[in-house]
Amino acid sequence: MSYLNNIDHPALSGSLNPPVPADDITNFSPGPTSLPKAVEEMIAAGFGKPGLTSLALSHRSPEFLEIFNHAVASVRKVMNIPENYEVLFTHGGGHGQFAAVPLNLCHEASDVATYVVNGTWSQRGADEGKRYCRVQTIDARDTKTGAYNSFPELTEETIDPDSKYVYLCSNETVNGIELHRLPKLPEARKHIPLVVDASSDFSTKPIDWIDSGIGVLFACASKNIGHPGVTVTVIRKDLLGKDKASPLCPGVFNYTTNSEAGNLWNTPATFNIEVIGHMMDWIAAEGGIDEIERRSIAKAKAIYDVIDGSEGFYDSPVTDKTFRSRMNVPFRIAGGDEELTNRFLIQSWDNGLIGLRTLTPFGIGEYLRASLYTGVALEGAEKLAAFMRDFARENS
Amino acid sequence: MSYLNNIDHPALSGSLNPPVPADDITNFSPGPTSLPKAVEEMIAAGFGKPGLTSLALSHRSPEFLEIFNHAVASVRKVMNIPENYEVLFTHGGGHGQFAAVPLNLCHEASDVATYVVNGTWSQRGADEGKRYCRVQTIDARDTKTGAYNSFPELTEETIDPDSKYVYLCSNETVNGIELHRLPKLPEARKHIPLVVDASSDFSTKPIDWIDSGIGVLFACASKNIGHPGVTVTVIRKDLLGKDKASPLCPGVFNYTTNSEAGNLWNTPATFNIEVIGHMMDWIAAEGGIDEIERRSIAKAKAIYDVIDGSEGFYDSPVTDKTFRSRMNVPFRIAGGDEELTNRFLIQSWDNGLIGLRTLTPFGIGEYLRASLYTGVALEGAEKLAAFMRDFARENS
Repeated sequence: MSYLNNIDHPALSGSLNPPVPADDITNFSPGPTSLPKAVEEMIAAGFGKPGLTSLALSHRSPEFLEIFNHAVASVRKVMNIPENYEVLFTHGGGHGQFAAVPLNLCHEASDVATYVVNGTWSQRGADEGKRYCRVQTIDARDTKTGAYNSFPELTEETIDPDSKYVYLCSNETVNGIELHRLPKLPEARKHIPLVVDASSDFSTKPIDWIDSGIGVLFACASKNIGHPGVTVTVIRKDLLGKDKASPLCPGVFNYTTNSEAGNLWNTPATFNIEVIGHMMDWIAAEGGIDEIERRSIAKAKAIYDVIDGSEGFYDSPVTDKTFRSRMNVPFRIAGGDEELTNRFLIQSWDNGLIGLRTLTPFGIGEYLRASLYTGVALEGAEKLAAFMRDFARENS
Repeated sequence: MSYLNNIDHPALSGSLNPPVPADDITNFSPGPTSLPKAVEEMIAAGFGKPGLTSLALSHRSPEFLEIFNHAVASVRKVMNIPENYEVLFTHGGGHGQFAAVPLNLCHEASDVATYVVNGTWSQRGADEGKRYCRVQTIDARDTKTGAYNSFPELTEETIDPDSKYVYLCSNETVNGIELHRLPKLPEARKHIPLVVDASSDFSTKPIDWIDSGIGVLFACASKNIGHPGVTVTVIRKDLLGKDKASPLCPGVFNYTTNSEAGNLWNTPATFNIEVIGHMMDWIAAEGGIDEIERRSIAKAKAIYDVIDGSEGFYDSPVTDKTFRSRMNVPFRIAGGDEELTNRFLIQSWDNGLIGLRTLTPFGIGEYLRASLYTGVALEGAEKLAAFMRDFARENS
């Protein structure tokens, strides 16, 4: 890992500003990351139009309420969210929801909640949950390697029937593990609402809300649906109600309080919400969620085909291919060879392929990571695949 | 109040889109509201430059860290914040801080905190505080009228010496009451940190951090320093520490956790922070906080001179002139006459003077309100003053 300390070259310090025209950049950052170019143009156009931008609109003005209602309706339509679910734009990112979920669904600290832990973010969710309820975990760690590389089966035996909810993260960005479809709880546990942290895969595949038994699903905006500062939180309405939340729940996190106030209990992140509306409009215009999923599959396949066909030059930590993430593809070069990894980072950056190494405090050792969120076009992923193929040929 | 239900004319429904060129609009909304035109131009220019906008930058990239560090340094410089204070960009708006303050400063629910309640927002702060500590209030309500129209003296008798903090709101937007300088706690209470909700007056006047005994000061961005989705929170460093916060404090609200993580414990609202940096740069270029205060005084004087010189045609609910807010000037027309008020709203809107009536759930009866945040130029306030003078002459 010592190449992490070599910051002589901007590519190695995580720079996102390579010496190529903006149109030639593909941003593989794990988030925040680029929006589709068409959406960036919609935003820029907003700054050129007459009247006030949403940066300047009171959240109670009819002009902003139109933007707001449009964003809610678009999220509902694109994600096919049934009427018995409330859609809120919430504060505090995914981490805010790590606290909000137990504070809303557990009235007492003695209440039990079951967390499936199979990576960095579900672990963080469980850790935060422990402040507010009795957390029971289903730990998916590989007992031999100590790594997370799969998703466990959910059985009657592993889920306490008194659980207020079963919590999972549908895409683990650091570990590269994704549930391409949500699991079903065993028949005898179907009464328990499912809570899903979909921060990094929301709007990239269909969700069957009713059949999956979703109680709460949240997604911070900064991966696939916008930029940081707002989170989409979807709550089944029967979980709302005056005295359901813990009395310790901050008002700003209280689903019922915010729902009853029309999501205007306090000032929402107005502009950030407008951008979500633009993203949803763009998805709808491109052919909807099925088309986004088709592209997501194609993008991930482009990169994984190179890894799997490289005769070990590249390798993936995700041994269970069923759960390989389409959103985040971690890969290692020549077993983590420092010099080759540096060379790869510098050459790819010079070619406008950026964000493959971000200096997070999490990391998984020598692995790089290609994040293929909706803002990454298929052509961008193919460009990276071609670069990887060439690089392997030249350096094997 | 029945004219509130007359929404036939867009001006009466709170529209911010009058039929005049954008350059002729002055936005008197109580927030969110317009930024100075020069700052709006800085933002728009960002969308035209090569490379990625901050909407697309990873919060861990050197490019964003430069924006971030610049914003922190600019807030420090403009507001003259001493080194023994930490500056954080926090989530959840002012309402988030209503919970964060007691959760960080009161380790136990039995801890005492003193709240000065002299308007809508200090009341909300106190209500939220009650979840996490024993709140004692100094209620400034006028016992005869039931209205808030002043600020009480702070005495030894009214402040419990064991208080973990004394809380106040330095500008009450709904009631139009402002502390032009922060009060000093009585000598025997100087050991208690002062907590200030400066959401609506931050960066419009100097703050003497040490001498005022400030422990925590917070300001949501959407009035004077940016747009909603981020809050500036300034904390005296001796109040930070591993086990100081309540164990019930959500990580996202924990000052110590966020400070130790370089304010990157979770993804901050990147673009919203960049805008704060632009605002601070603009303030510095215009002559700093003293110049902003000079303009604030002049803007408020322009409006109050018309009110006070109108022989009762206009009147103000703030009977104690010492505490008349420079930020928000509530005023009534002909004792609240419905028809004249409607006529005023429509004619002013037709002239590009907007945001004087927003349909909040708070309200103070028949009063309109001119909010004179930093985005309102002196010329805008003078335009409103001239309009008010003409309107009074024509309708007295």
